[in-house]
Amino acid sequence: MRRFIVVGQRATTSGDFSLNDLCGGTGRLDVLLRCVNSAFFLSHGLRSDVELYLVLKGPPDPPKAVRMLGSRILHLNPDERSTAALLKNALSIRLPKGLEKEASEGIYVSRLDLEGVLSKVGREGAVYLHERGEDLRGCKAELRDMTFVLGDDQGLTPDEEGALEGLARISLGPQVLHAHHCITLLHNELDRRA
Amino acid sequence: MRRFIVVGQRATTSGDFSLNDLCGGTGRLDVLLRCVNSAFFLSHGLRSDVELYLVLKGPPDPPKAVRMLGSRILHLNPDERSTAALLKNALSIRLPKGLEKEASEGIYVSRLDLEGVLSKVGREGAVYLHERGEDLRGCKAELRDMTFVLGDDQGLTPDEEGALEGLARISLGPQVLHAHHCITLLHNELDRRA
Repeated sequence: MRRFIVVGQRATTSGDFSLNDLCGGTGRLDVLLRCVNSAFFLSHGLRSDVELYLVLKGPPDPPKAVRMLGSRILHLNPDERSTAALLKNALSIRLPKGLEKEASEGIYVSRLDLEGVLSKVGREGAVYLHERGEDLRGCKAELRDMTFVLGDDQGLTPDEEGALEGLARISLGPQVLHAHHCITLLHNELDRRA
Repeated sequence: MRRFIVVGQRATTSGDFSLNDLCGGTGRLDVLLRCVNSAFFLSHGLRSDVELYLVLKGPPDPPKAVRMLGSRILHLNPDERSTAALLKNALSIRLPKGLEKEASEGIYVSRLDLEGVLSKVGREGAVYLHERGEDLRGCKAELRDMTFVLGDDQGLTPDEEGALEGLARISLGPQVLHAHHCITLLHNELDRRA
């Protein structure tokens, strides 16, 4: 299983947003929508061995974590708008603390923050994608059943970085990239090693 | 200069489409919109050394080529919808044969097909991205000032493949990927070699 956790520092935690203004009106949820595409799509199919967590920290009801499971998901299209509609539905669900609810096939929502997600999935095999980390291509670790933690365009807070203390840091090359580009590069390296 | 040419086999050649149905109502123009993001965006900036051609072959007025020039482009946002609005504008321009017109800063439109674009930019340094090509990472060529030709989800026609006869074929790994994922992988390899 390849697992990605992407933190949206100001991504909306309500389903009350317009599909016509994803870039301006959702706290940059669009950044995370592109991560969904990179995490799951092959040219003619979905990657079933992927779990993606989107940790949403924006108003009005933070935090929320949307979990998407490749082996269970249905009706996923590659474009931003239709994925946003799935998240809009997930974020509209009434959510008691401590409970994860299935919003639609393979899409689950809970009140976990980054630390909560890491506690749930375990820190073993977890790495933090960071521009000053060890180069992925030179990485001797086996890189199977990994959890990759990524920030959005605002990166992670000092508290979140504290929660990642002790995890390996991995970088992907000389340029600083968008989170969804990073996921594409990670998949390619893991595909090559598989 | 890094140049990408992406062919959209049925991508609309009219600006008369709805921004609310990019996946269903544009002949999969959405596939090409994602290529724009991958071609130009860094985490906090644009790649100015990139030229991207989108070759559109769908109804009602094929072919058209939209050329985007990183060194000149303004007002480019990473999301699909706002990029679609730029293309909608470019495709609404009245276009005499043989002429390229600037639709907005750094975005040009003409009536070229793939062969026409290749004639214009030259075949030197041009390669065809193909799942049965030589592996990019093992490629001994210098990989600077390259032109990369990519198909959309329908690939290229036999006639187009004929026009690419004699060009090197390069592959990116064991999985068949979306065109925009390929562009991300190409950039990373070229960034590492630069």
